[in-house]
Amino acid sequence: MIEQATELELDQTLGVDVFQALFDRCSNWGRWGADDERGTLNLITPDVRVRAAGLVRDGVTISCAHPINTVGDTENSSPAMHFVVRAGDVVDGKSVHSTADHLAVSPHGVVHSHLDALCHFVWQGKTYNNRPVGIVTSMGARANAITIGQDGIVSRGVLLDIPRTLGVPWLEPDQAITVADLEAAERAAGVRVETGDILLVRTGRQARRTALGGWDSKKSLSGLHHLAAPWLKERGVALLGCDGVSDVRKQPFTATTHPVHILTLVSMGMQLLDNQHLEDLAAACAARSRWAFMFVVAPLKLVGGTASMVNPIAIF
Amino acid sequence: MIEQATELELDQTLGVDVFQALFDRCSNWGRWGADDERGTLNLITPDVRVRAAGLVRDGVTISCAHPINTVGDTENSSPAMHFVVRAGDVVDGKSVHSTADHLAVSPHGVVHSHLDALCHFVWQGKTYNNRPVGIVTSMGARANAITIGQDGIVSRGVLLDIPRTLGVPWLEPDQAITVADLEAAERAAGVRVETGDILLVRTGRQARRTALGGWDSKKSLSGLHHLAAPWLKERGVALLGCDGVSDVRKQPFTATTHPVHILTLVSMGMQLLDNQHLEDLAAACAARSRWAFMFVVAPLKLVGGTASMVNPIAIF
Amino acid sequence: MIEQATELELDQTLGVDVFQALFDRCSNWGRWGADDERGTLNLITPDVRVRAAGLVRDGVTISCAHPINTVGDTENSSPAMHFVVRAGDVVDGKSVHSTADHLAVSPHGVVHSHLDALCHFVWQGKTYNNRPVGIVTSMGARANAITIGQDGIVSRGVLLDIPRTLGVPWLEPDQAITVADLEAAERAAGVRVETGDILLVRTGRQARRTALGGWDSKKSLSGLHHLAAPWLKERGVALLGCDGVSDVRKQPFTATTHPVHILTLVSMGMQLLDNQHLEDLAAACAARSRWAFMFVVAPLKLVGGTASMVNPIAIF
Amino acid sequence: MIEQATELELDQTLGVDVFQALFDRCSNWGRWGADDERGTLNLITPDVRVRAAGLVRDGVTISCAHPINTVGDTENSSPAMHFVVRAGDVVDGKSVHSTADHLAVSPHGVVHSHLDALCHFVWQGKTYNNRPVGIVTSMGARANAITIGQDGIVSRGVLLDIPRTLGVPWLEPDQAITVADLEAAERAAGVRVETGDILLVRTGRQARRTALGGWDSKKSLSGLHHLAAPWLKERGVALLGCDGVSDVRKQPFTATTHPVHILTLVSMGMQLLDNQHLEDLAAACAARSRWAFMFVVAPLKLVGGTASMVNPIAIF
Repeated sequence: MIEQATELELDQTLGVDVFQALFDRCSNWGRWGADDERGTLNLITPDVRVRAAGLVRDGVTISCAHPINTVGDTENSSPAMHFVVRAGDVVDGKSVHSTADHLAVSPHGVVHSHLDALCHFVWQGKTYNNRPVGIVTSMGARANAITIGQDGIVSRGVLLDIPRTLGVPWLEPDQAITVADLEAAERAAGVRVETGDILLVRTGRQARRTALGGWDSKKSLSGLHHLAAPWLKERGVALLGCDGVSDVRKQPFTATTHPVHILTLVSMGMQLLDNQHLEDLAAACAARSRWAFMFVVAPLKLVGGTASMVNPIAIF
Repeated sequence: MIEQATELELDQTLGVDVFQALFDRCSNWGRWGADDERGTLNLITPDVRVRAAGLVRDGVTISCAHPINTVGDTENSSPAMHFVVRAGDVVDGKSVHSTADHLAVSPHGVVHSHLDALCHFVWQGKTYNNRPVGIVTSMGARANAITIGQDGIVSRGVLLDIPRTLGVPWLEPDQAITVADLEAAERAAGVRVETGDILLVRTGRQARRTALGGWDSKKSLSGLHHLAAPWLKERGVALLGCDGVSDVRKQPFTATTHPVHILTLVSMGMQLLDNQHLEDLAAACAARSRWAFMFVVAPLKLVGGTASMVNPIAIF
Repeated sequence: MIEQATELELDQTLGVDVFQALFDRCSNWGRWGADDERGTLNLITPDVRVRAAGLVRDGVTISCAHPINTVGDTENSSPAMHFVVRAGDVVDGKSVHSTADHLAVSPHGVVHSHLDALCHFVWQGKTYNNRPVGIVTSMGARANAITIGQDGIVSRGVLLDIPRTLGVPWLEPDQAITVADLEAAERAAGVRVETGDILLVRTGRQARRTALGGWDSKKSLSGLHHLAAPWLKERGVALLGCDGVSDVRKQPFTATTHPVHILTLVSMGMQLLDNQHLEDLAAACAARSRWAFMFVVAPLKLVGGTASMVNPIAIF
Repeated sequence: MIEQATELELDQTLGVDVFQALFDRCSNWGRWGADDERGTLNLITPDVRVRAAGLVRDGVTISCAHPINTVGDTENSSPAMHFVVRAGDVVDGKSVHSTADHLAVSPHGVVHSHLDALCHFVWQGKTYNNRPVGIVTSMGARANAITIGQDGIVSRGVLLDIPRTLGVPWLEPDQAITVADLEAAERAAGVRVETGDILLVRTGRQARRTALGGWDSKKSLSGLHHLAAPWLKERGVALLGCDGVSDVRKQPFTATTHPVHILTLVSMGMQLLDNQHLEDLAAACAARSRWAFMFVVAPLKLVGGTASMVNPIAIF
């Protein structure tokens, strides 16, 4: 069935039953026990981490985060607020001896580099592992919160650079990435996505922005075709990241606008890294002809959080 | 001179000239060029990182952050604000399909696990490398900002567990840690702090809190004696962390209440990890009889920031 | 029945049926139509406003708000955050030409002077006028929001100064104010609370704080006995304010800790002014031997809000 | 000289000396003593307030505030943040019994209805009454803060409806309002601006927005010609409000982009109400053929604040 991915057109209209079947196929509910909250993070075993550390050969580190965006515009409708205080203060004739600041941010904004907790999405009233949406209250999530990664998410990272593979500078905003695209990128990179990997998928969003200027990415943005989701499960991906939001905006489903979000967060129990900055990483990979590296994500220890701003680090 | 550390009593009153001499002795201004902003992060070379990765043998990760504290009290006078939204919403008869949240935090609070930028402290109108305090405005720091570590701070971490070395459960809040204490901890651990290391110093603050309850740590808190600062430079420490705020509260100086902050941030160009949670790390080290490990700090990419909330990760 | 108020001891335990009977007795549901959201604000007719303006004789204004409290402590567990920016900035050799600031506040905190919207409390799944709690989502309240007073709440204000009437400097934190107390204060003031009035009840909370220091007002705080609620309805009070939170903390009910909140906000549709500063107003009234005045409350125009910080103004 | 206002073209370039002369002509420094912070609020005497209350005949109130804007876009680059919490929470099988919220806002944004404190602007290093800019630090303003109006600003309000006078639906964004325009509006309204008045000037900004859609008002926005400033002083205006920001964007000065801000806030000590919603007020005035009314502004009691969100209320 996975091979038929490219045949499924995004301009079809697909009902809830089609989506539910896809959901069931991807599901990891119960796989690690009825009490499990870690989902695909379970795939990152100590051995996987040790092997990931073995990829560090050059001692070079690369960030996959954008600078935190504090300027509101049509795309960034919830800008972060950053206030630096004490700077320049002169009190009682004495100049300031320290400076400080304050940061306020709603991480799920479409320009913010963040990690989604499993409780961020809901399907048919349930979150990952059959937990009802009611586990999340305004006091925070009692389960499936961002703290499942609080000791750090450390594994092998693999970058699949789709525009590079296709020989284009970037994907168009409505372009969906299929399994065939992912496997072509694997072949081009000489790497195979394996159990416990952190998979980063580049659409070239930032390259397009740099060349052509911004657009409203809430309306059109490249990402994975929903039929790529079962492939993520088959390969044992532990965490998915993208320079978009993993989902392509143009969707065929009547029941959801974010099938990949639901299939990963809710069905598989796989967290998502949204809005990553992958240009530097792509250049670092290309320069070394090596698309696998040690990768560390350290979400803030926010009890009950639905997300965390993060600065994921690749280590070559 | 360093050996005389224990002779210098904290109940003496020491003038600005004594402190300036100490400042000059620690100074790295100009060491890496007049334009340098990275300070002791320069000591973390690619080779140091590669060797640090070589310490990963068990594939176990440990967080050094406290949960983000959102409840105001006398000690936590600037609690973080965390709001979870959309949870429980029913709109047009349809239940919520996603949840989200918002976090606002002033990271320098005395209970928040954060990384100080070099611009956080000022001495005689100057920040690290002779840059005037005016580089910091309310629009952010034009230099010496938190972004010097934006590609991740990755090196060998070394824990010096002072209470364990001294055979006590914790240090008392006014107790200063001397060079003799640090070197005794090195000997006990069978490790020597070396160039490029991230040094973590445990005072047992959290163990004391757990046993005896909280106290106003803005008034009394154990930390390093100021004469330990030159030792940090001699050993080539790249980053200093503590379960307190590195400085002991009780201070002899007329000119500053935070000599270690100034000697590290301003004079040496060494960032500080304040208010770390070191209990789990101490247990992990003791269990392995190994006090050195790979260590990763990934500060948020906050342009002009004076600090970042962080979740530092030790990898064994 | 109201006369029996003093007989009902607060150390009794009262069941849900007793409270429901009280709720029904106070109810204004349907009184102004099934669509009404304004509740007792309906009692402030144009005539009432014109008469209120007629009370302005001295041209003196008095604030009933506390300064906004930005310092967290045990009582103020959600301090406001206030950041002043640009002050002291020197950019490109030029000094700042303007200053600005930012204020973040959770108004319902027990030290903040605020106005409660009708949707702030819920009884048996319903808010005022039989609207289900589901009208409030994290996107805001679709009805019963703070905006019902967005054109300003302008009426006659009446201060009932209970400690003055009782000849004490303040009420003790567990002291409940009965109908007898209210009517004694009326007689002492030579005023009668009438339809459309804004009633302010002074417990002397601030006088006690000034004299004895603060205490945890989340645990003990003087306020109205629940049997005073029907009296509020009989008199036609339009808005109730208090230097506490209207409710006395010590309560006999199993079903709620805030009977006065529910009886006013939910049953009568009467908004509440919590944590008012009434010392200056009390002094102004005593100096004039006049306890009635024009009163203006101008809540922020916050669509969907459950409260607003306010600065209510008495005009003599 | 004032009559020459219309002769001064805004496309001239005017130097600092011209502006300084205008500043000196408007200055109220020292007028109410060297310690004065209240500026033109001094003109609102008790008598003025009593007469203002005498204008209340219909008992009708009108708000002059826009709803608080929480959606970021190009114009609203610092949207307010509003989070409603507890709504929909079900904890331990029990539904929520109260709802609450949080509001964070930077009031000086160009869409927010706010009151500017005198310390908001600086001229040649000074704020009102010769106080140096250093009175404002990041801890707040030590003088000239928003709290000068903390007991409420209550006076006669006068609306001068310029588009109505000129027979147009709105002024164009670069159109400057001259003294001749103001006096024509007075004649049309049969009212004369007098000592202690709160003057509201309508440009029709909101009418234009409703008809034509929004534009970037940071770039073009109608307001007062700078030569109208001396007229404000001559007439004894106590407070100036506008549906824009009082200044017209297109300016001839090399030394400042906001001459009216500086001439009012700094030179005269006159606070400004920016971004008022004047459509309802204009309709209420036209319906009554009466352009004078009681007016109440109740800024939040924010110690050291440079502004306050406000909801100014006209009472007819």
